[in-house]
Amino acid sequence: MPSSVYMEELDAFTYRAAIAEGAPIIIPVGSIEQHGPHLPLNTDVVLSKAMGARLAGAIGGLVAAPIVYGYKSQQRSGGGNHLGGTTSLDAATLISIARTLTLEFARHGAHRLVFLNGHFENYQFLYEGAEQATAELSLHGQDVSAILLSYWDFVDEDTIEEIYCGSFPGWDVEHGGVLETSLMLHLYPELVRPDRVMDLPAAQLPRYDVLPVRAELTPESGCLSSAKAASEAAGRLLLERTSKALAEAVSTELALWLP
Amino acid sequence: MPSSVYMEELDAFTYRAAIAEGAPIIIPVGSIEQHGPHLPLNTDVVLSKAMGARLAGAIGGLVAAPIVYGYKSQQRSGGGNHLGGTTSLDAATLISIARTLTLEFARHGAHRLVFLNGHFENYQFLYEGAEQATAELSLHGQDVSAILLSYWDFVDEDTIEEIYCGSFPGWDVEHGGVLETSLMLHLYPELVRPDRVMDLPAAQLPRYDVLPVRAELTPESGCLSSAKAASEAAGRLLLERTSKALAEAVSTELALWLP
Amino acid sequence: MPSSVYMEELDAFTYRAAIAEGAPIIIPVGSIEQHGPHLPLNTDVVLSKAMGARLAGAIGGLVAAPIVYGYKSQQRSGGGNHLGGTTSLDAATLISIARTLTLEFARHGAHRLVFLNGHFENYQFLYEGAEQATAELSLHGQDVSAILLSYWDFVDEDTIEEIYCGSFPGWDVEHGGVLETSLMLHLYPELVRPDRVMDLPAAQLPRYDVLPVRAELTPESGCLSSAKAASEAAGRLLLERTSKALAEAVSTELALWLP
Amino acid sequence: MPSSVYMEELDAFTYRAAIAEGAPIIIPVGSIEQHGPHLPLNTDVVLSKAMGARLAGAIGGLVAAPIVYGYKSQQRSGGGNHLGGTTSLDAATLISIARTLTLEFARHGAHRLVFLNGHFENYQFLYEGAEQATAELSLHGQDVSAILLSYWDFVDEDTIEEIYCGSFPGWDVEHGGVLETSLMLHLYPELVRPDRVMDLPAAQLPRYDVLPVRAELTPESGCLSSAKAASEAAGRLLLERTSKALAEAVSTELALWLP
Amino acid sequence: MPSSVYMEELDAFTYRAAIAEGAPIIIPVGSIEQHGPHLPLNTDVVLSKAMGARLAGAIGGLVAAPIVYGYKSQQRSGGGNHLGGTTSLDAATLISIARTLTLEFARHGAHRLVFLNGHFENYQFLYEGAEQATAELSLHGQDVSAILLSYWDFVDEDTIEEIYCGSFPGWDVEHGGVLETSLMLHLYPELVRPDRVMDLPAAQLPRYDVLPVRAELTPESGCLSSAKAASEAAGRLLLERTSKALAEAVSTELALWLP
Amino acid sequence: MPSSVYMEELDAFTYRAAIAEGAPIIIPVGSIEQHGPHLPLNTDVVLSKAMGARLAGAIGGLVAAPIVYGYKSQQRSGGGNHLGGTTSLDAATLISIARTLTLEFARHGAHRLVFLNGHFENYQFLYEGAEQATAELSLHGQDVSAILLSYWDFVDEDTIEEIYCGSFPGWDVEHGGVLETSLMLHLYPELVRPDRVMDLPAAQLPRYDVLPVRAELTPESGCLSSAKAASEAAGRLLLERTSKALAEAVSTELALWLP
Repeated sequence: MPSSVYMEELDAFTYRAAIAEGAPIIIPVGSIEQHGPHLPLNTDVVLSKAMGARLAGAIGGLVAAPIVYGYKSQQRSGGGNHLGGTTSLDAATLISIARTLTLEFARHGAHRLVFLNGHFENYQFLYEGAEQATAELSLHGQDVSAILLSYWDFVDEDTIEEIYCGSFPGWDVEHGGVLETSLMLHLYPELVRPDRVMDLPAAQLPRYDVLPVRAELTPESGCLSSAKAASEAAGRLLLERTSKALAEAVSTELALWLP
Repeated sequence: MPSSVYMEELDAFTYRAAIAEGAPIIIPVGSIEQHGPHLPLNTDVVLSKAMGARLAGAIGGLVAAPIVYGYKSQQRSGGGNHLGGTTSLDAATLISIARTLTLEFARHGAHRLVFLNGHFENYQFLYEGAEQATAELSLHGQDVSAILLSYWDFVDEDTIEEIYCGSFPGWDVEHGGVLETSLMLHLYPELVRPDRVMDLPAAQLPRYDVLPVRAELTPESGCLSSAKAASEAAGRLLLERTSKALAEAVSTELALWLP
Repeated sequence: MPSSVYMEELDAFTYRAAIAEGAPIIIPVGSIEQHGPHLPLNTDVVLSKAMGARLAGAIGGLVAAPIVYGYKSQQRSGGGNHLGGTTSLDAATLISIARTLTLEFARHGAHRLVFLNGHFENYQFLYEGAEQATAELSLHGQDVSAILLSYWDFVDEDTIEEIYCGSFPGWDVEHGGVLETSLMLHLYPELVRPDRVMDLPAAQLPRYDVLPVRAELTPESGCLSSAKAASEAAGRLLLERTSKALAEAVSTELALWLP
Repeated sequence: MPSSVYMEELDAFTYRAAIAEGAPIIIPVGSIEQHGPHLPLNTDVVLSKAMGARLAGAIGGLVAAPIVYGYKSQQRSGGGNHLGGTTSLDAATLISIARTLTLEFARHGAHRLVFLNGHFENYQFLYEGAEQATAELSLHGQDVSAILLSYWDFVDEDTIEEIYCGSFPGWDVEHGGVLETSLMLHLYPELVRPDRVMDLPAAQLPRYDVLPVRAELTPESGCLSSAKAASEAAGRLLLERTSKALAEAVSTELALWLP
Repeated sequence: MPSSVYMEELDAFTYRAAIAEGAPIIIPVGSIEQHGPHLPLNTDVVLSKAMGARLAGAIGGLVAAPIVYGYKSQQRSGGGNHLGGTTSLDAATLISIARTLTLEFARHGAHRLVFLNGHFENYQFLYEGAEQATAELSLHGQDVSAILLSYWDFVDEDTIEEIYCGSFPGWDVEHGGVLETSLMLHLYPELVRPDRVMDLPAAQLPRYDVLPVRAELTPESGCLSSAKAASEAAGRLLLERTSKALAEAVSTELALWLP
Repeated sequence: MPSSVYMEELDAFTYRAAIAEGAPIIIPVGSIEQHGPHLPLNTDVVLSKAMGARLAGAIGGLVAAPIVYGYKSQQRSGGGNHLGGTTSLDAATLISIARTLTLEFARHGAHRLVFLNGHFENYQFLYEGAEQATAELSLHGQDVSAILLSYWDFVDEDTIEEIYCGSFPGWDVEHGGVLETSLMLHLYPELVRPDRVMDLPAAQLPRYDVLPVRAELTPESGCLSSAKAASEAAGRLLLERTSKALAEAVSTELALWLP
């Protein structure tokens, strides 16, 4: 039995044994992106990795080394890519990474992959990369499937109600807000500086994008809503409920692919 | 004054005169995609073009020739790209088209572009292409901005309520449903075959994607919800309200960029 | 039986039935390109589409949605890509479009494709795209073939003599000239403004290209020869003869591939 | 004064001195392509290089190291890329080579480049590469121009008449025929094996391409017309006349770009 | 003063302040690669990151989030990319990552970057990416320079002699051997399993590569030489000496670029 | 029996016969790169070609037309790509060339290829291209293998000692030095100008690269060490010994792949 759910910490022999036994691979996908003055630049990396570790535990999987750098931050979901600290790849590069990793894990003998996304803007590019790779593998008769998801899609409405008490601003402006800050307070309190939270009103963003961005649309904090109401307790609740919903959905899906 | 809002029907001299007077360019982006047995494959093309024509009328713009083929249909928003009739480009190609057209219209002297999207899956790739092009143009000191939007984001909640009477299934399963069918009945009734609508329950799709798709998740019709309740009157209402909201938003934004 | 030869106007179920019966797919390829003060920017699109419709009628095929934007206009065949209104893709993008569409129609079950070109500059890039796709399909044992042609190669010498009465300037300078204008007068008279024809001598262009172009080599009209002698009658003759020659050539070729 | 017109044989110091004096760079572009049983695979390389050397002599230029491998042979101009010995690059690679070399020679300080093409199929891809590079250079204010030509476009009608005596089959089927064989007999007789010429009728090729090619359309020799009538004398005449016409055209064009 | 040398653990405001003060950015580049039964798959990541942290401390820099996945393992330096666990990117993807990160850090205002490589095979691709980006930046007048190095090039001969006592097998077969194992024993002993070291003779590899690899050339351990002689003490010595040499070289170079 | 070991000088029929008999293909890879005032720009091309001809003679192979232009010169191995005369491709282009040629020779029926490199900087990009192509061919069941080598790796220590008498400066600074000059003096004395050798001390280059390069690190000659000690006799010895070692290694490897 592997000594860690993190593939990167295993030696190759142990890793190969786990794959031979059918362990699914969970690939956390984050970003290096400003999250205001109170959260670290790697928030999306460590949250997707933490969610991945819980999922791995639940389904007997392994967590791959994360995709650290993600797609460009967009103003309506992450404040915009003009901001200092936000360090992004372009579409072609992220697509290639997703495609190549799918092919590499398939070469190792893995049959089931989960791209666990922690940065909104990544999704369509992960999809394209995984689509290309699984289509190529199908063409050559290899049975490899990939599940793609963003973890916040597994936060249920009751939990939202419980945490936000009716003032949920919408996922679109949840960048650096209550969800991420609470999860970080629970998981990595040493990386959070709650005293630096800027309690500003949620951003008012139009129903379209404009490029180049009009920088004044992003609040001074870089966050799209206030993290004032964040708490360690909310983080624990979010992690528990979301991990559970994720594990249920993924294990149900994986069961459908069994021989 | 141009004899048509459609750039493609103008001769070059007339077109150049309009650009010289500052006409914004609206680029409709569609797809060739199955929309069930009752709607034509070019539904997304003709609807984005029609929305574009109304917007052009309102803001003194021109409608560019459409981007006809779009990104791969995804199961949760369009039934999936495995379906016959759906004819798609990959990400790199759509990104290049958006980037190149932005640069070409800038070369003509256009300063304001609107990508008016009619196919959900296109959005992020249009964004990447427009982002690349506007960044290049900025680097060389050219003042060119691009607005990106999907037209259904301008349908307001009252209209949804009025049309769906509380049974709105969500935009995610609106593929081939009441919205698109009503608009087509109003605009292009000759292309609609209402007798062929398959009145099936809305699709139950998971909160993730899986690739290769499990084909059984898409209803037999290829539509994600029933178009039974569609009507010409609903289409007229949708077109009027959405066109109006679109025109207001775009003209407000354009006013901000004036010298 | 399909209600239209235009694939884009069919619903997916009707389209699939036609493909299942072996209908070849004809893909019109145009451009958005200046054609002087008397012809619309989409001349190459609508002419290739019209030729395609007649070919489809003759061979029981379907006309795909057109490739609207084409390769850069070159000075010796289209006046040059520096001219306002001309809106072009680069080589890589057009190659990708041709490759991807070939693969998509093959996925639908189509075995015979015809790229019907209406813009001189496109040809080699369509060839590369179709070559890549058919080679990939062959490698995987799929019997898919693609025919590539430019419609003016099917205008016979008698017709040229009949129309030009000895003053045929050569296809190279036929941009915006008698051929295209006559066809447009016959097919889409509402898009032609004959009163705006500029009756200038045919362009004198060198036997080489130079880049950046020397703009003064292109006549002020943007046309490479005068359309003065164009007529609706000539257009009808050209369409009839060329359609017939096209249909004969393509049906003969297709017959060779039958099982 | 350089000891050779061939850049590749010069040392860097001598080369730099020539560039500093304004020497134009002539880039021969060939292919490795079957030319029947009597001509070597590098026919297009050595002929474009020989034409380049004469042009360099006439205009005080230098001949760059050749682009040895060219674009895929097409059936209607080179017999097809399915034939053994024909060794080709794809479009993207040839475009990159043309683009990169243009940028590199510009970096050296060269202002005038001539792509001298010896393989029909290359032309559009050289054009794209040179177009991209000269556009980039213009954008940054660099005055660099590129001339693109295929040498046979400078064979005049009198010479054709003199050599073919009324039986000129057209440039399209001149692959491995009288022109190339005569030039090789004159320039590189040791590489020609006249006894192996296969005297077959000119190929009858359709007015379209079909992919995959129908191999039976290419004559057994791989040549599209017979080289029977080739002679050293015809080669000398062709070389003299064509070189002269080339030199006149290029020097006239270059004079237009002088400050 | 930043609370961490690791950029990813800083909030954006703190990061921006450090950049504004001129902090160089050090980008560790690793790989996910088998390193035998005794070392974890992320050995190259954590070692380059550790070296980076020491360098950052010495020069007042920040360590960027690492490039986790690297170029394909080659048989002569890493055992080969056919081995399970080794998870690699292709050349184009790694080049893009290096290029894009250089441009992103330049956008933040960083002027001096150091790519600190921990996986032999990466080097040329990092070079290409950094070369492209710095050339683009120069073209637009931005003063950004990048240093590229592999850390083992800073191990001096005395240290080698001290550690290997005359039996240094050469860097080429140092994969999973004494150097990496000693460093890991010193830095991350909890990730090393010394009891699993396979004490096999150093690999005998030819002076060329062959593809596909002949798998039998790689020792069963996946290591190219034995780690038997590794020790925590040797690791400490290597880290101290190498860090010192690195810091001296980099600070000397950076001093040359000061205004 | 072919009349030449150079494929490019053979006609297609003779070439095909040689391939049918199992002749391996040797692909020389050079560069157009400054080599000081005494050596021509094509030094790497002609030396790799000459080594290839000897290898072909020894193993019954054919020498393909060379890859003439190579990857960017790097300061630590070739003086840097900022120098006039050095004319280079980027990574993507060289990778594509290596990949495409491998696929083309495989299509001809060749099973064994040797990339014989004569320019240090090329190696990793040739590797990537050959790796991609051989992997694709394997996937489709084709038995094609490629050997990759740089010829100086076959110069043995005794020869180095004999020629340099203890003052060997290392391969890294052997650019334009004793090895290349001696080989050229032996093989192509007419291209060498020994009187122009600049007898400067070997370059002192750091253990890292910096980009943009600091031009002052490259000696004025462009050579990294002095060619003063070069001689025709040393060239003969180097050629004999190296050719022999190369032939032994390659023929041993090829024997392992025989059925």
